[in-house]
Amino acid sequence: MNYPNKKIISKVLCSKSNRGMSLEYAINESNKYYLANNIAVIYKKPVPIQVVDVLYPSRNKTVITKAYYKTPSTTDYNGIYKGNYIDFEAKETSSSTSFPLSNIHLHQITHLKKIAEHGGIGFLIFFFKSYNEYYLIPLKIINEFWNNNQNTRKSIPYVYIKEKAFPIKEGYNPRLDYIKVIREKLI
Amino acid sequence: MNYPNKKIISKVLCSKSNRGMSLEYAINESNKYYLANNIAVIYKKPVPIQVVDVLYPSRNKTVITKAYYKTPSTTDYNGIYKGNYIDFEAKETSSSTSFPLSNIHLHQITHLKKIAEHGGIGFLIFFFKSYNEYYLIPLKIINEFWNNNQNTRKSIPYVYIKEKAFPIKEGYNPRLDYIKVIREKLI
Repeated sequence: MNYPNKKIISKVLCSKSNRGMSLEYAINESNKYYLANNIAVIYKKPVPIQVVDVLYPSRNKTVITKAYYKTPSTTDYNGIYKGNYIDFEAKETSSSTSFPLSNIHLHQITHLKKIAEHGGIGFLIFFFKSYNEYYLIPLKIINEFWNNNQNTRKSIPYVYIKEKAFPIKEGYNPRLDYIKVIREKLI
Repeated sequence: MNYPNKKIISKVLCSKSNRGMSLEYAINESNKYYLANNIAVIYKKPVPIQVVDVLYPSRNKTVITKAYYKTPSTTDYNGIYKGNYIDFEAKETSSSTSFPLSNIHLHQITHLKKIAEHGGIGFLIFFFKSYNEYYLIPLKIINEFWNNNQNTRKSIPYVYIKEKAFPIKEGYNPRLDYIKVIREKLI
């Protein structure tokens, strides 16, 4: 492969995505458990990608040769639990003092608010890697910090989350029993 | 770009995907109308793609240089309407006599059945291009034909659909008022 002035650095990408893998993996495994045990039907949405060019090297195989990542319109996860529409975004931080809101898009918060208006259950899951702690964050906590100033990137102090948000217990199966929190705190 | 033994035939792909565009476009436009008028929050899920290689030609731009289409785990559309979880797949046919079930995956039907079990509303939208007619197909109609023999690819006769399924009126805005059918027939 001759790409004289470009570098294929997929190894770097792999290590980058592995950093975020544990949270996504834990949620996906929990969702498999919920599905297999008929508790809830919740899936991660695919990452939106804009396909530009494709090849057909053989009859049944399409190879995408040029594409770009698009900004997601909504959140990462949605589904149903006991007739309730469930919708959430999951994020993690290495910080031990606060959770930065910088990687949450305004349109994602707007989307979660709309879900709540229409009778669904919308929230965020935050993972503090330094403490190995997971929290279910109700929308009202996000609103308190987000509404202060939309243009300034805010963060939510760890101590505030520890006091006000709902911890999600990490276990063997399900790995992250966030449905338990929904059942006990949100319904 | 030197690809001596491969052909870039994205033009063919474009015309191929345009054939399916009208139905997807009509549903997406309807969903925009529902969202803008605060009637329902329903989105098309992104097409799942397995990314293999990427390049970083500049700091903020990732170019995907090798990727493959994956089989979707679930259906194309989901969301919420008046607290109800909504989930559906949309398909079209050029046939004037029947609707082939060949391009609906068994796991999609299994998924829609699970949605119904958990209290959600699952269905299909069929578009007969020869008649320019759209129908909302309740799961029970699919089951009647699907359960006969899972290994044989079945089709549902047009006359049966015309008699038993619910027509969706095509209009200016929303283009396809399938929420009206849900409201009048499924809730």
